[in-house]
Amino acid sequence: MSDLRTVPTLDDVARAAGVSTATVSRCLNSPERVVEQTRKRVMSAVEALGYTPNFGARVMAAKRTFTIGAIIPTMENAIFARGLQAFQEELHARGYMLLVASSAYQPKIEEDQIRALVARGADGLLLIGHDRDPAIYDYLRARSIPVLSAWVYFPDSGQPTVGFDNRQSMRALAQQVIDYGHRQIGVISGITKGNDRAAARLAGLRDALVANGLDPDAMPVIETPYEIENGAVALQTLMQADTRPTVVMCGNDVLAVGALRGARDLGLSVPEDVSITGFDDIELARIVAPQITTVHVPHREMGRKAAIALIDMVEKRGTGDTIELKSTVQLRDSLRDLTC
Amino acid sequence: MSDLRTVPTLDDVARAAGVSTATVSRCLNSPERVVEQTRKRVMSAVEALGYTPNFGARVMAAKRTFTIGAIIPTMENAIFARGLQAFQEELHARGYMLLVASSAYQPKIEEDQIRALVARGADGLLLIGHDRDPAIYDYLRARSIPVLSAWVYFPDSGQPTVGFDNRQSMRALAQQVIDYGHRQIGVISGITKGNDRAAARLAGLRDALVANGLDPDAMPVIETPYEIENGAVALQTLMQADTRPTVVMCGNDVLAVGALRGARDLGLSVPEDVSITGFDDIELARIVAPQITTVHVPHREMGRKAAIALIDMVEKRGTGDTIELKSTVQLRDSLRDLTC
Repeated sequence: MSDLRTVPTLDDVARAAGVSTATVSRCLNSPERVVEQTRKRVMSAVEALGYTPNFGARVMAAKRTFTIGAIIPTMENAIFARGLQAFQEELHARGYMLLVASSAYQPKIEEDQIRALVARGADGLLLIGHDRDPAIYDYLRARSIPVLSAWVYFPDSGQPTVGFDNRQSMRALAQQVIDYGHRQIGVISGITKGNDRAAARLAGLRDALVANGLDPDAMPVIETPYEIENGAVALQTLMQADTRPTVVMCGNDVLAVGALRGARDLGLSVPEDVSITGFDDIELARIVAPQITTVHVPHREMGRKAAIALIDMVEKRGTGDTIELKSTVQLRDSLRDLTC
Repeated sequence: MSDLRTVPTLDDVARAAGVSTATVSRCLNSPERVVEQTRKRVMSAVEALGYTPNFGARVMAAKRTFTIGAIIPTMENAIFARGLQAFQEELHARGYMLLVASSAYQPKIEEDQIRALVARGADGLLLIGHDRDPAIYDYLRARSIPVLSAWVYFPDSGQPTVGFDNRQSMRALAQQVIDYGHRQIGVISGITKGNDRAAARLAGLRDALVANGLDPDAMPVIETPYEIENGAVALQTLMQADTRPTVVMCGNDVLAVGALRGARDLGLSVPEDVSITGFDDIELARIVAPQITTVHVPHREMGRKAAIALIDMVEKRGTGDTIELKSTVQLRDSLRDLTC
């Protein structure tokens, strides 16, 4: 590349400083290993020539590229936006950049993107969820590339995770719903295949029913991609059943906001005619009327802690910590207390 | 890096195929320049060894890194999310990856990030808006790094832009507002310093007032960062004036949704007591009640066309096309027609 662009190269710096290119690299990457006099001469040459260590030279010379890759299922809605922004800010503060790709919730695309990020020398990877083909983890292990899973807490996965327990979080919300006297529960879930968060949330719902002597198999469940429009359509389907649910519990806030619109379109009042709950506590949940009862997830804290944990893995070559963050049930007007 | 990881290197492939490393590079990067027999031998070795061209080797060998950098003001709200997702999908389809950073609307941070992306060998850059220190454009020109500005259409900027005319778009919306009989217009704008889109939208508002014989200097304007909460506070300030606005025009939908909440908190009905307009037509504008009159921007089309134009600049080393996309006024219930 340097032959195509009129920029100073590592060679130019080495010549100007009268040292080898290896010494220049060492000054840039492990300055503590170079005697002060040499280091000063090299850094003066770097300054005088306006040398920006180029990526190729750095990759060849350094042990790291100071680039972290992240693959998220989508950039389009707000589910991952806040956490990713915090992740990027923390990386930036520590001198790393973020390479980001989105997989459209397709495991095959995610796999391709993992290889592409590795080919570009990513120092470490952030992935969403933990459940994927073991061959991928083997591939990354063989290349000594640290990988951290976020948006999940899964201590037994054999991989470090930074996140919350999706199953317990949804179970806690469902317990609250049952405590409020609801027995006819309809569910609008994300697609569970290939999405361990969606599957865990559904499992948590079933746990709560079983714990309260209710039959989870009698609970109507619609699985649909996370889009507002899909939530609206699914709510209308659920409300056409012979036994109408008194509450529709949704896999996330995007579906819940759609369900709210679907209820409005049917002329139903929320929560008088039907209650609605979400998951995530993104901004959407608070700007609609009524505001949505949901599970609050500490997105910014999760993004920040994931960045710190992953850089730690990259720099100390450790196995990485698993960190559990706490979610909380956030009660708002969309859920009616039938016992009052 | 290759000495630290147990992966095949370019050298390994060259040895296995009995050719020079330069030939291996040529096979990977300019296969048309290598005779078929040699190419087959090299590609068999690549396959047999499971060689992934690593980033360093590729940067050294190829003219491109197949990586595009983008710096957006924020990843946190939905303003840029849809366009960026489409941009990334189009890059992915063409074998490029996206390096992304967010600048928090700070020109100084954006400048640092431009240098960091260049240091990582980005083939080209996508920036939001066109107005920045000319030294940055000189810096990129000296390094032959193509740069494309999006979210703006600005044919005279000397740089290629892919976007819409913010000034004309807001002027068209303001003309509609005036045609509906509104004369007392209050404005909640984004911070115009360092944000050419916000400044252009405000200028378009003033254009419409002047064209209709109204005094733009009599129009109250509050500038505030794009946050829902700020829109709510600003609306309350505007409504406390002696002469209450009949319409509050907001610099984007995030502020408009906040203004709607501010009105609700004051016990005002929208649009009966006050009309509210936005800009962008993101999902937020349609999920609130009443839905918000706004300027529809073709986010996905813009992201896709920006990717195509930028890759074209990278691959053909052209100066880049400027492409204007059309915005449209999207009338919804938050704007009242006072002439009815």
